[in-house]
Amino acid sequence: MNYQQILEDIYDEIKPYAHQGKVADYIPALAKVNPDQFGICITTIKGDTYTLGQVDTPFSIQSITKVFSLAYSFSILGDMLWQRVGKEPSGTAFNSLIQLEVENIPRNPFINAGAIVVADTLLSHLKSPEEDYLEFVRTISGNPRIDYNREVAASEKEKGYLNTAIANLLKYHGNLNNDIDDVLRFYFLQCSIEMSCRDLSKAFLPFANHKCAFHFGNVHLTASQVKRINAIMQTCGFYDEAGEFSYLVGLPGKSGVGGGINAVYPGRYSVAVWSPRLNSKGNSVMGIKALELLTTRTRESIF
Amino acid sequence: MNYQQILEDIYDEIKPYAHQGKVADYIPALAKVNPDQFGICITTIKGDTYTLGQVDTPFSIQSITKVFSLAYSFSILGDMLWQRVGKEPSGTAFNSLIQLEVENIPRNPFINAGAIVVADTLLSHLKSPEEDYLEFVRTISGNPRIDYNREVAASEKEKGYLNTAIANLLKYHGNLNNDIDDVLRFYFLQCSIEMSCRDLSKAFLPFANHKCAFHFGNVHLTASQVKRINAIMQTCGFYDEAGEFSYLVGLPGKSGVGGGINAVYPGRYSVAVWSPRLNSKGNSVMGIKALELLTTRTRESIF
Amino acid sequence: MNYQQILEDIYDEIKPYAHQGKVADYIPALAKVNPDQFGICITTIKGDTYTLGQVDTPFSIQSITKVFSLAYSFSILGDMLWQRVGKEPSGTAFNSLIQLEVENIPRNPFINAGAIVVADTLLSHLKSPEEDYLEFVRTISGNPRIDYNREVAASEKEKGYLNTAIANLLKYHGNLNNDIDDVLRFYFLQCSIEMSCRDLSKAFLPFANHKCAFHFGNVHLTASQVKRINAIMQTCGFYDEAGEFSYLVGLPGKSGVGGGINAVYPGRYSVAVWSPRLNSKGNSVMGIKALELLTTRTRESIF
Amino acid sequence: MNYQQILEDIYDEIKPYAHQGKVADYIPALAKVNPDQFGICITTIKGDTYTLGQVDTPFSIQSITKVFSLAYSFSILGDMLWQRVGKEPSGTAFNSLIQLEVENIPRNPFINAGAIVVADTLLSHLKSPEEDYLEFVRTISGNPRIDYNREVAASEKEKGYLNTAIANLLKYHGNLNNDIDDVLRFYFLQCSIEMSCRDLSKAFLPFANHKCAFHFGNVHLTASQVKRINAIMQTCGFYDEAGEFSYLVGLPGKSGVGGGINAVYPGRYSVAVWSPRLNSKGNSVMGIKALELLTTRTRESIF
Repeated sequence: MNYQQILEDIYDEIKPYAHQGKVADYIPALAKVNPDQFGICITTIKGDTYTLGQVDTPFSIQSITKVFSLAYSFSILGDMLWQRVGKEPSGTAFNSLIQLEVENIPRNPFINAGAIVVADTLLSHLKSPEEDYLEFVRTISGNPRIDYNREVAASEKEKGYLNTAIANLLKYHGNLNNDIDDVLRFYFLQCSIEMSCRDLSKAFLPFANHKCAFHFGNVHLTASQVKRINAIMQTCGFYDEAGEFSYLVGLPGKSGVGGGINAVYPGRYSVAVWSPRLNSKGNSVMGIKALELLTTRTRESIF
Repeated sequence: MNYQQILEDIYDEIKPYAHQGKVADYIPALAKVNPDQFGICITTIKGDTYTLGQVDTPFSIQSITKVFSLAYSFSILGDMLWQRVGKEPSGTAFNSLIQLEVENIPRNPFINAGAIVVADTLLSHLKSPEEDYLEFVRTISGNPRIDYNREVAASEKEKGYLNTAIANLLKYHGNLNNDIDDVLRFYFLQCSIEMSCRDLSKAFLPFANHKCAFHFGNVHLTASQVKRINAIMQTCGFYDEAGEFSYLVGLPGKSGVGGGINAVYPGRYSVAVWSPRLNSKGNSVMGIKALELLTTRTRESIF
Repeated sequence: MNYQQILEDIYDEIKPYAHQGKVADYIPALAKVNPDQFGICITTIKGDTYTLGQVDTPFSIQSITKVFSLAYSFSILGDMLWQRVGKEPSGTAFNSLIQLEVENIPRNPFINAGAIVVADTLLSHLKSPEEDYLEFVRTISGNPRIDYNREVAASEKEKGYLNTAIANLLKYHGNLNNDIDDVLRFYFLQCSIEMSCRDLSKAFLPFANHKCAFHFGNVHLTASQVKRINAIMQTCGFYDEAGEFSYLVGLPGKSGVGGGINAVYPGRYSVAVWSPRLNSKGNSVMGIKALELLTTRTRESIF
Repeated sequence: MNYQQILEDIYDEIKPYAHQGKVADYIPALAKVNPDQFGICITTIKGDTYTLGQVDTPFSIQSITKVFSLAYSFSILGDMLWQRVGKEPSGTAFNSLIQLEVENIPRNPFINAGAIVVADTLLSHLKSPEEDYLEFVRTISGNPRIDYNREVAASEKEKGYLNTAIANLLKYHGNLNNDIDDVLRFYFLQCSIEMSCRDLSKAFLPFANHKCAFHFGNVHLTASQVKRINAIMQTCGFYDEAGEFSYLVGLPGKSGVGGGINAVYPGRYSVAVWSPRLNSKGNSVMGIKALELLTTRTRESIF
């Protein structure tokens, strides 16, 4: 498959969408990002890399971090994790408190409530949570320069009223073991990590490489566990647009409000795409369009 | 892959679950089914068939019919269908009115509200809806003896207070064009079709055969459209257990309260399984267990 | 208290509101009513009557009928009625299905779901439900010419998708004993009764006369039961504007989408007001304004 | 009316309920209260006082404070207050976040969310909020020894996850102007005030005395405004049991989880009752029973 040519064709075709959507502006650090950026990077199981655009510019990965934190926690707790967080699509906006009030445990680890519980499990089980988490992300992406952006994390925490509401509700229901402030600080730090498309694409390759077990630093997952994380990405990875993404793109993936998306084609490749303008559901406009065209033109999808 | 041996191993392993769960008993015709039945049938793209148990006993396919009706309607309306029904997981029980009251259009074609809208579109566009629909199902499964069970359909309609509530709500919101009674009669008839595992497995093979376009009688779908139907099965096919099924089994599929499930592994096979005892979510206990073991033992899943 | 002078002053003051709001137009029979009509009639415990405007024009009482049906059913079932319908304000729009789906019994007898259950109880206990109900309304208002408008009732039934949905949901939950169609036909007939302000004002006088027991035809209520019906009017009589009406007017009352409102001041008077234009909550704009001014100018309210 | 005799009769009749219900135990300071206490105190407009039981024992007034804070804020903001808080019954449990998520402003000032907004308005407008608020309560009850219980307030704040969630949600929606911690500290302090039945009964007398304007320290309300506060007590004063209380007792009132209730009969009396054991809705079992018997035996209610 001539992925390089396909990327170039895709780029021509998505240019008309370049000014659609709106950069996340709920904190200044995100609002000031230049909206007119785009990058896409495919890394194949065989080891090839195909890139187009700004693939080496680090950006705020935001909710994409939830895949890393889930992998870490799942490697520690195994199926016991599912006693504290579900694995069903949420059916409502990603930050909805309604489901939480009715059902007590978050529907899945990719809505904020679920990721906050996952952060709580890591705080309980890791010796040096901040260092250990960063180390894992650096190891899996093979880039030791990846780091937290503490200014972004602090800014998120300051304006994080909704997530603070969620954390308090979880605590009320007995589903947070650590101090609320500590959990939120760690959660926002996880989201503040900055990575490039190249970093992300490489970091997700082990999820595409589903025939091998997963061993990165202290994080060990069986092939079956990796597949199960992919399954959760498929049904829950795009807020309340998971069905739409599955329909249009047909690959498991995870998006973030920084404008990044990483999708994986199990057995073939990992692809990271980034463009800061978001649609009304909080997903990158050009990112989704590019991935839709990728699976259309390659005629490759899991379905 | 020695599927026959795997089926036999699976059967040994799921025997302990043989008496778990409860047959659907909301209408007499379903309640009187012998609960101690089990059958599984794999049909591969290459044309091989592997069977175990009661694979030739017809049973009520119930909600599995929603895949056929979606395929038929999608072939007629294309993407215009999505103006009247969504494609997001529902996040609540399959018959919930709450979402409908808040959002006006059904979340997806596999909850009852969505399938009732789909039935309405077929009533509007088919010359002889009942005959045409049956003919399509007979053609796709290659079995001309397949038929409606009119006693089951009448019984469902008589006790169908919840579905009648849903249909009235849809009519109130302007999302039904035909007479409510006509739509419900057709909808229940679609659900009443009786097929065996062998029939179902064959009827779903075109969904597994995603490289080819789909041409059965009057129903024509592109390869891309077939994949998209698979994507919807993946995110929405199991009521509010879609995430769990995706996690455990990792294949797109659709279940029915008659105890049947059909899953497809795009590019490989279609598999039908049937056992009448249901779990609390309305899905076959042995059916889900068998499929979980199938993808575990073959190490084959879309993820 | 010079009520006549006060009514005239009020009329001057509410004239500017004469063209605000919108006549109910969901059925033709209501939509064709001349919107520029207004009448108000006070009947005191002492026996005096004060009128202004079109007080002898009959109009569709619609939901005001729910007070009569509650009185009738309560006289038959006593507190057993509360096993099938609650007495708490609904907190959502009057026809919401959400509460019903979550709680199974209607929150109160003045939302549609509750009134449909009440109609069902009357169908079960009255020998000739239609005749008996009409006879009761004629007796309590002292006007033997009051009648159903069968054209309105038929028209409501034809377009009554939402109420049909509600009735089916009640049946599904086992909270309707009679045939759905029979219950709805009777319910819509009750709502179709036409009365003038003078009729209504007189018919509600026994609710104001809370020191006496209530004996009209076959309907017998203790003074305590009458007070309790007033209490329910106070907390539930105005759809999701009950709090606002209580705040502005301070009297128990009941409104209908025909533009009528009847309020009672226990120990003093009953007041009926009618003007067809409705606010966004379905209550008469001029009606609410007139009653607000009445209690403001007389400085009389239950609080 | 021989209120003293009636109180004694009531006490005999409610004794069988003395051990029903459960003391609020969500914080130690409330859990350790002796549950077997009961007091009732009637203060009439004419100036007479009737008492029975422990009418001079101070207890935690908790949510009853919401009437005082509403009165204070309403005297400052007038109808502008209603831009930030509604006046409709909530229809769900008093601490529900669901309505808040859907509607953004609290339904009424007597659910926690509403009272937190009211506390925020006082913080914004009072020079010395803590001192001013306490001074108002002391003035209206005529007891200068009334005080906050800072241990209870601190304990509530420490365990106040649900209220912290609510406050964060309000802040997120732009409906809190002050620092969340400051608002919550002030809110919990207001709830921690300790008063006896005698104090409460006297403090609510101005609400019963609806013919006079209200002037206590800096708090000035017109007769009309006092009536409107009574109206809100009637429709919203008892969490999701407001309809039931209105039905059984027929007076406006407000309850607290400390086991206190104060009701007013406009034009006649104010009555405070206290008994710590609560029903499942959070209202005093013996308190509600005593008030039901009071209006039954005196045959006096607003209806």
